[in-house]
Amino acid sequence: MSYDDTNIFAKLLRGEIPSHRVYEDDAVIAFMDVMPQGKGHTLVVPRAPSRNLLDADAATLAPLFSVVQKVAQAVKKAFSADGVTIMQFNEPASGQTVYHLHVHVIPRFDGIPLKPHSGEMEKPDVLAADAEKIKSALRTA
Amino acid sequence: MSYDDTNIFAKLLRGEIPSHRVYEDDAVIAFMDVMPQGKGHTLVVPRAPSRNLLDADAATLAPLFSVVQKVAQAVKKAFSADGVTIMQFNEPASGQTVYHLHVHVIPRFDGIPLKPHSGEMEKPDVLAADAEKIKSALRTA
Repeated sequence: MSYDDTNIFAKLLRGEIPSHRVYEDDAVIAFMDVMPQGKGHTLVVPRAPSRNLLDADAATLAPLFSVVQKVAQAVKKAFSADGVTIMQFNEPASGQTVYHLHVHVIPRFDGIPLKPHSGEMEKPDVLAADAEKIKSALRTA
Repeated sequence: MSYDDTNIFAKLLRGEIPSHRVYEDDAVIAFMDVMPQGKGHTLVVPRAPSRNLLDADAATLAPLFSVVQKVAQAVKKAFSADGVTIMQFNEPASGQTVYHLHVHVIPRFDGIPLKPHSGEMEKPDVLAADAEKIKSALRTA
């Protein structure tokens, strides 16, 4: 399996399509999932191209998961969540739908199951407001 | 939330209970989940104590996710899997049941959903045979 740089996250990284970004540095960006499985569902993505974790350069992983931790702490605070689920899918059998390595960070609330990955788009103003809450939590971490 | 060193993975790390280990180094161990959600379900665990990702020392993460990648590659090879699911749960709202940071690495096969986290124990001889397959795949990576 090889990397195809026409995938939607590659376009997003190149600025060809918009996103509600909550964090970025030289190696990693984080932005709101437009089809969230729960309130505050955020994606953390390395800039370096790889299809998924299986073919990623080992050097990509330390900065990626450092940001995953920061975002997990921030979304818990931003939404007063009870917990946080981290998921990362590799290949279609696992549920991967975009073929650029990405990590799901999803705030969790007691008694509320994850929504299925339905393809239902969240309203842009909701995503923008959620992104502001996460950015605020990251600033005050 | 604080760390309680009587949790089952702390006992396992101290050698007080057995496990089917597939990998270990100074910082990280990996072993078969005794209640697998799918064939070859492996757990990757840092030796350093933390309740979950939210309170983990940042220095713990790079070696942890380096081993997660190696184990993901190995289980895919060992079981000729179609994909691999990575999950990491923080707090009960997310499904966490053992309060020592751990990462689930689960081989996936087209059309076969994950089994629920049922509490059904796998037979020890099956776990032992699966562990041997993963160790072999790690050796020849």
